[in-house]
Amino acid sequence: MTAPKTPLLDRIAGPPDLKALTDRELRQLADELRSETIHAVSRTGGHLGAGLGVVELTVALHAVFDTPRDRLIWDVSHQCYPHKILTGRRRRMDSLRQKDGLSGFTKRTESPYDPFGAAHSSTSISAALGFAMGRELGAPGNGDAIAVIGDGALSGGMAYEALNHAGHLGKRLIVILNDNEMSIAPPVGAMSSYLSRLYAQGPFQELKAVAKGAVSFLPPPFQEGAKRAKEMLKGMAVGGTLFEELGFSYIGPLDGHDMDGLLGVLRAVKSRATGPILIHAITKKGKGFRHAESKADGGHATAKFDVVTGEQAKAPSNAPSYTKVFAESLLQEAEADDRIVAVTAAMPDGTGLNLFAERFPARCFDVGIAEQHGVTFCAGLAASGMKPFCTIYSTFLQRGYDQIVHDVALQGLPVRFAIDRAGLVGADGPTHAGSFDIAYLSNLPGFVVMAAADEAELRHMVATAAAHDEGPIAFRFPRGEGVGVEMPERGVPLEIGKGRMIHEGERVAILSFGARLAEIEVARERLMARGITPTVADARFAKPLDRDMILTLAANHEALITIEEGAVGGFGSHVAQLLSDEGVFDSGLRFRSMVLPDSFIDQAGPSQMYADAGLNAEDIERRVLDVLNVKVLERRA
Amino acid sequence: MTAPKTPLLDRIAGPPDLKALTDRELRQLADELRSETIHAVSRTGGHLGAGLGVVELTVALHAVFDTPRDRLIWDVSHQCYPHKILTGRRRRMDSLRQKDGLSGFTKRTESPYDPFGAAHSSTSISAALGFAMGRELGAPGNGDAIAVIGDGALSGGMAYEALNHAGHLGKRLIVILNDNEMSIAPPVGAMSSYLSRLYAQGPFQELKAVAKGAVSFLPPPFQEGAKRAKEMLKGMAVGGTLFEELGFSYIGPLDGHDMDGLLGVLRAVKSRATGPILIHAITKKGKGFRHAESKADGGHATAKFDVVTGEQAKAPSNAPSYTKVFAESLLQEAEADDRIVAVTAAMPDGTGLNLFAERFPARCFDVGIAEQHGVTFCAGLAASGMKPFCTIYSTFLQRGYDQIVHDVALQGLPVRFAIDRAGLVGADGPTHAGSFDIAYLSNLPGFVVMAAADEAELRHMVATAAAHDEGPIAFRFPRGEGVGVEMPERGVPLEIGKGRMIHEGERVAILSFGARLAEIEVARERLMARGITPTVADARFAKPLDRDMILTLAANHEALITIEEGAVGGFGSHVAQLLSDEGVFDSGLRFRSMVLPDSFIDQAGPSQMYADAGLNAEDIERRVLDVLNVKVLERRA
Repeated sequence: MTAPKTPLLDRIAGPPDLKALTDRELRQLADELRSETIHAVSRTGGHLGAGLGVVELTVALHAVFDTPRDRLIWDVSHQCYPHKILTGRRRRMDSLRQKDGLSGFTKRTESPYDPFGAAHSSTSISAALGFAMGRELGAPGNGDAIAVIGDGALSGGMAYEALNHAGHLGKRLIVILNDNEMSIAPPVGAMSSYLSRLYAQGPFQELKAVAKGAVSFLPPPFQEGAKRAKEMLKGMAVGGTLFEELGFSYIGPLDGHDMDGLLGVLRAVKSRATGPILIHAITKKGKGFRHAESKADGGHATAKFDVVTGEQAKAPSNAPSYTKVFAESLLQEAEADDRIVAVTAAMPDGTGLNLFAERFPARCFDVGIAEQHGVTFCAGLAASGMKPFCTIYSTFLQRGYDQIVHDVALQGLPVRFAIDRAGLVGADGPTHAGSFDIAYLSNLPGFVVMAAADEAELRHMVATAAAHDEGPIAFRFPRGEGVGVEMPERGVPLEIGKGRMIHEGERVAILSFGARLAEIEVARERLMARGITPTVADARFAKPLDRDMILTLAANHEALITIEEGAVGGFGSHVAQLLSDEGVFDSGLRFRSMVLPDSFIDQAGPSQMYADAGLNAEDIERRVLDVLNVKVLERRA
Repeated sequence: MTAPKTPLLDRIAGPPDLKALTDRELRQLADELRSETIHAVSRTGGHLGAGLGVVELTVALHAVFDTPRDRLIWDVSHQCYPHKILTGRRRRMDSLRQKDGLSGFTKRTESPYDPFGAAHSSTSISAALGFAMGRELGAPGNGDAIAVIGDGALSGGMAYEALNHAGHLGKRLIVILNDNEMSIAPPVGAMSSYLSRLYAQGPFQELKAVAKGAVSFLPPPFQEGAKRAKEMLKGMAVGGTLFEELGFSYIGPLDGHDMDGLLGVLRAVKSRATGPILIHAITKKGKGFRHAESKADGGHATAKFDVVTGEQAKAPSNAPSYTKVFAESLLQEAEADDRIVAVTAAMPDGTGLNLFAERFPARCFDVGIAEQHGVTFCAGLAASGMKPFCTIYSTFLQRGYDQIVHDVALQGLPVRFAIDRAGLVGADGPTHAGSFDIAYLSNLPGFVVMAAADEAELRHMVATAAAHDEGPIAFRFPRGEGVGVEMPERGVPLEIGKGRMIHEGERVAILSFGARLAEIEVARERLMARGITPTVADARFAKPLDRDMILTLAANHEALITIEEGAVGGFGSHVAQLLSDEGVFDSGLRFRSMVLPDSFIDQAGPSQMYADAGLNAEDIERRVLDVLNVKVLERRA
């Protein structure tokens, strides 16, 4: 693939160089930036659609404002690739989402042009308001604070909390609503309908005329005062009452791909704004690349692809993904039990619930990016007598933690938590790792917490959750493909709190919780070659623990090693608590708990991330040898 | 105090009896219910103001709807006392908030009239929507779903998430906005100003007339269809555009103390509503009891009091409260460092930040009931160069967990978390217990986690947090009075990760994290009377651990016992992880970790709750004797 011609972009070392360009050149720069973005992502894969939608916005913002002193904060930051290209990271774009490469998100440690990193949704207005108030209080080096937030992210309650607070404080703050009528999936929620109505009411043509004259009809600063400015800005709005009621001046809707309009409005805002302002820009996800534009999700994420045909490179798959196994297993259960309903927070595809929604549209709910509500909505459904499966990735479920404690656990309501993306997840990096759920769920009274060792186990755990009506139950499973085990036709409910023996052995017992089991098998093979035959067991449950199995393993072995894809405080800690309570340590037990290390693991392939975390087969092998005091020569790397 | 005369109320066994009463009698019943509520709370103490504000609403709802089949869900549920009196719990009101007594909140296990318990804010619409969708899907026994939510609770993002979803689904759902222009403190936020404007625009007189004729001007069901009904209901609204934009029909504002108006509107809604409806009722917190009405917080919570004079019984205090020590210590630091700012989520009084707000109004932020935003707002402030103290109770900080992980820990931003109400809290019961923060913070890379053993330690920890600019830091402290230690004039920053030796002893070491230290001292006295002299140390830090101290204690004693006011997965688990990693268990160590048990501890006095949890002096004494295999005769109870 040949690189696109980008004569103007080639001259740009960073945002300061944009100041010297004419508006016409800025338009050309945007076109080149779009080509460059497509070219870059074609070689690495990544999030394409969102970035293509904000190319003009990216250029206009950096041209008008004085970044990095003016703090530009991208919500979620899937859309930050053009921003990265413009802010000195163009040459490193081929390292995107790879080990030691550029992050797929904004990241404070990567560039001063990333004043606040993101990856989870709806945080940008809160962060920008923090910068704005820091500026008001005299913290040096802080200019304007600008949040760019998508319409999907606006369904998250914290965005509303932040608007509410910003409107109350009344200080200068710029929020750009990047409305592509899409989050990752098509949008849900009344807010989304509202935004569509604003769009329908206000044709671009009117506003374009207005925007071009914006400088002249805005009042000069310090002349007629803040109140008058607010009224004038209000005059630009065709709709937007809702935001005005929350204390924001509303400007829009405007065409987010019309560079002249964007420049006019942003210049007017920069020179005249006094209080909080919301600029409503309509954009098209995937804009300018027809293979992205034409997709239902606007080409949200992609593998490497051919720029001409749009065809994506795909690695051959050896086993069904855990996500697919979950989705199909849940469908099986739902066919047999019409009390089963499924809830996703804006991730119907990622969670596999799109299958469920097709088959049982009335029983599948997409609540939007609204995990707090999603959890308590499930609690209400459970209290009404339904069997809700709350299907949220481990890292996003953190958003609903209080609701899990307060609405689910305290009331003992039988909500089923299907927790995908447990453990390390690869290219999305540390913001998407599911590291903490074992700890934050297993200490909740009345919870059942399971982890699937393979895709067959996952099927059984779905059946277990469907059958368990006595209280809350959670099961976690990793991102990616299963291990290729034979699949049972149907799931069979597991006995709650009972693990399973995998291999009887001697001296050392390895007790697995979750999908490290495959690595343990590899480690066991290697150890057997050294004459050590470990016992291997699958705990299945972090809560309730299989006390009998664990105490028996401890009694019959010199050493016991637990392993899990989670941070300290989870499964291993609960085992340690049991062993200490029972006095097992009193007379000595070589006990080790292998957990994620006390650091955030940078993006890489999942296997590499687990290597960095010290949880792969060779780490397990080494730990066994260490604990048995077997001295070995270090192998050469 | 003589009980008020309540001839009508005396005849009411439960809500079904209300169906036989005339509107006139319902008015009288409300008056009697108000007197009875005041009388009941005068004897027990508790949350008075909120209940007095909804007396008419409570009577009208139970009179018009068919509870418990119609699901009535009180948000937060501070306002549920009149509801409890009406729903068969009148005789047990004198046990309110006491051991084995009625909860101060709604509670599913207490009554079928409490379909969904609460205590944390902003959950009711989500839960009600769950019930409504369960009904739509055929779950038997579910009638109307009605959420009663205060204007303060509406600042919580999950309430907005739920409105957004409910408006999208479009099914029948009733939300009553109980607008007393107050949460616990006077309200903040643009939404609150918006509600005030609605009130200002729409005098009651107009709507009262409308409400009386409501039945006639609403369309008959099944005749003109849902759309027409919506338009007609819309006609009742004087304002409310914001809610309409979110897909709700808006009715209001109406006088929440006008029984005729309430009955008219509720009857109309019950017979005719098709989609989601929001009824905006203006009420007065503390209504009908001048000693409550006249207070800034509407008599939110009270000790036992004299009904005539309003004078509250107050126990003499022996030591300053932890809250007060925190507030004063923070002020000291803030006087010396103008980068220090303070953030509360609608709890200026409870957190002691009212002092800060008086002294430094521009540097103190009340974000409303909006913990998610509050945490990320602090992260933004920290990134701008300020030193934010994020001051949120342990149990409410759960609301901001993802923001702590994603915005603070991942970016290593120096946000200071001041965590009041750590551990068990007494009368507020399990919903307010701060049980999980040690676990959910201590496994986050880069965090520093401290707990104060006494009020002097707390002062030092405030200074430590102020001085620590390298990353996030948290310190927790309990509800209630300190232990009466001598106070240092100023706090002195502690060395990060260093504990302190309290008493050198032998055989057994007790390692304390937090405020159980006083109980350990009592236990030590008793043990010394038996000839056992334990070593006692204060860990101060759950993260980073004082490795040297812990390993030395383990090496020099037969037994090591950790103790903390938190659930498993926290301090003791981190100590166990260290000991196992270092091979200390290999050759035997009598290690025990005393933590909160695996159950939610019911309300009682704090000391009783800790007795139930097994964490008082006698439990510590017994654990030491057990671990040393000292047989003792059980003392008689």
